Amino acid sequence: MADDIVARARAIAIEQSIEMPVEAVREPGLLETVLGRVEAIEPAADAADASPSGWRVTVSLATSTVGHEAGQLLNMLFGNSSLQPDTELVDATLPADLLATLPGPAHGIAGLRALMGVPTRALTCSALKPQGLSAPALARLASEFAQGGLDLIKDDHGIADQAAAPFAERVPRVQAALAATNARHGTRCLYAPALNGGARAIDRQLALARREGVKVVLVCPMIVGLASFAELRREYPDMVWLAHPALAGVARIAAPLLLGRLFRLLGADATIFPNHGGRFSLDEAQCQAIARAAREPLGTHRACLPVPAGGIRVERVPELLAGYGPDVMLLIGGNLLQARERLVDRCEQFVRAVGGPLPGEHR
Amino acid sequence: MADDIVARARAIAIEQSIEMPVEAVREPGLLETVLGRVEAIEPAADAADASPSGWRVTVSLATSTVGHEAGQLLNMLFGNSSLQPDTELVDATLPADLLATLPGPAHGIAGLRALMGVPTRALTCSALKPQGLSAPALARLASEFAQGGLDLIKDDHGIADQAAAPFAERVPRVQAALAATNARHGTRCLYAPALNGGARAIDRQLALARREGVKVVLVCPMIVGLASFAELRREYPDMVWLAHPALAGVARIAAPLLLGRLFRLLGADATIFPNHGGRFSLDEAQCQAIARAAREPLGTHRACLPVPAGGIRVERVPELLAGYGPDVMLLIGGNLLQARERLVDRCEQFVRAVGGPLPGEHR
Repeated sequence: MADDIVARARAIAIEQSIEMPVEAVREPGLLETVLGRVEAIEPAADAADASPSGWRVTVSLATSTVGHEAGQLLNMLFGNSSLQPDTELVDATLPADLLATLPGPAHGIAGLRALMGVPTRALTCSALKPQGLSAPALARLASEFAQGGLDLIKDDHGIADQAAAPFAERVPRVQAALAATNARHGTRCLYAPALNGGARAIDRQLALARREGVKVVLVCPMIVGLASFAELRREYPDMVWLAHPALAGVARIAAPLLLGRLFRLLGADATIFPNHGGRFSLDEAQCQAIARAAREPLGTHRACLPVPAGGIRVERVPELLAGYGPDVMLLIGGNLLQARERLVDRCEQFVRAVGGPLPGEHR
Repeated sequence: MADDIVARARAIAIEQSIEMPVEAVREPGLLETVLGRVEAIEPAADAADASPSGWRVTVSLATSTVGHEAGQLLNMLFGNSSLQPDTELVDATLPADLLATLPGPAHGIAGLRALMGVPTRALTCSALKPQGLSAPALARLASEFAQGGLDLIKDDHGIADQAAAPFAERVPRVQAALAATNARHGTRCLYAPALNGGARAIDRQLALARREGVKVVLVCPMIVGLASFAELRREYPDMVWLAHPALAGVARIAAPLLLGRLFRLLGADATIFPNHGGRFSLDEAQCQAIARAAREPLGTHRACLPVPAGGIRVERVPELLAGYGPDVMLLIGGNLLQARERLVDRCEQFVRAVGGPLPGEHR
């Protein structure tokens, strides 16, 4: 077995670099400069890293093979090996020169707090849903959330550009509803519409969103594409980028690495992830690891705001604040919406739980 | 257990549609029009579909939730459920109206055959590698492959825009080398450079590639992004799109669905996948299922050329032709390159094995 893992580790190092038999390389210098190296092989006993039982193999790759481009970084980290079901990418340590080539958050936690006027407490967020609501219905819902004192309202990630509420109709309506509510109640609720499609479609959506005064946008980096997301972040540094984990298949790339460190490096100012104890299977240690990866020092990059979500009940807010600390945005959707006609009251309970001001109270 | 799977199936149908508690929906009509429906729950006994033992759940979703956009289709099929390690997306049946909104291959198998001047036999392909070779060295390698009579030479998917062989230097050099070799030997070898980065970077690369007369390009849809890939395919219908499976993590979306049907629907003219018996773990039934998904009737969409790859030896060509039939392109890299100074001879063996003409023989 020890021999097997040595050979397997070597095969991974080859697959993720020269991707050909070593003896077929006619330029011996490349075996020194480009061929991946197996640095360590250890039993994977640590349950917190989300890896199955097995071996933890450390491979070093040449930074020259990345070439300053975010998509190629992912390709080098896990391109072909992602196709092998016995492998999982559990961590990646990037040297300073490589970190410096990646965009990272343009605003980060400090920028988000300044934009929202919330210097220290945890932030509150909810989602416009379900799919199928008309644009006026979504705008009314946004207004209720704002009346309840929430900081940010995002489109549900399933709300794209469908006929029920096309982007070009939805965004102006929701923005107008929030502007009116904010003016009436002294609130500062912001709207993050969901971008969708390829880069061209997103260009058009961002042009419209900017005209309407939108400051925060939601995007699914695994669907729009990791390379495309990083490029968008560079081209629209004025926007705050809220990353959604749809299609991220956390079973193959460890969630702390993908949703925490990598989404942050590609430019997410805030990263949504499935909270423990809700509808998804990550445990508390994994969620804490995501939050840590989003916030810990990382080259010169700004911190990314962790946004736990997915089946959170308002009653759990004190527990979650104790666990995550205040540099967090709690995203509660369904549990607020279950209040139906008493939605505003339920939002106020949420706001109280994070120590925020209610509408009418000066902030 | 039967009760458990009924509840789990219902939860998946909710997660992939309204994504909120049913009782929280204030518009009862949406429960009729948008809420996903569990259509069937069966034991998953069929090993050929790549699913683990467990249950096979069929959920129907409203086409109105997709809204004519490829990325949103993926979001609806597996967005949040991809985050749940007990789920795998094994199949997706799309109605004709939805199929008609997707680009599909612009050229397909027939277009590729016409472009390459190969009406009936299997096509041959190899890869320029390893990473780290200079542009002149890659051009010399391409020339040797062409002298050996191969039909198509692609960049290794790990060759991006690194300093060793920048795209802007590599593409003209390889094109020029192939043009010279083709003129001298009467061959028709084409070059498929690897595109990388986001849509803007790819725009620049395609402009250069077009100027150089490139007709075929390689792209990793999971890295550039599924939504962005579909958009690029629509904007560049003159290009033949060769899809690479990097980062496709086949353990969570069944390979026949993702690499066969979905890549095809997004616009791949040819799809590379890990062949059975090589470095990857798919078995022959799964590989045949990928080829079937790429070629079978699918609305009005053109057929996509299956391209098995990954550790194929020339000696296996007869077996693979028997299995896949002639509408296939065999991609052999390392096994050719192992011949080193006798590379041209080894390519000729490959060409002979598929029944192709050698350089100098009239085609």
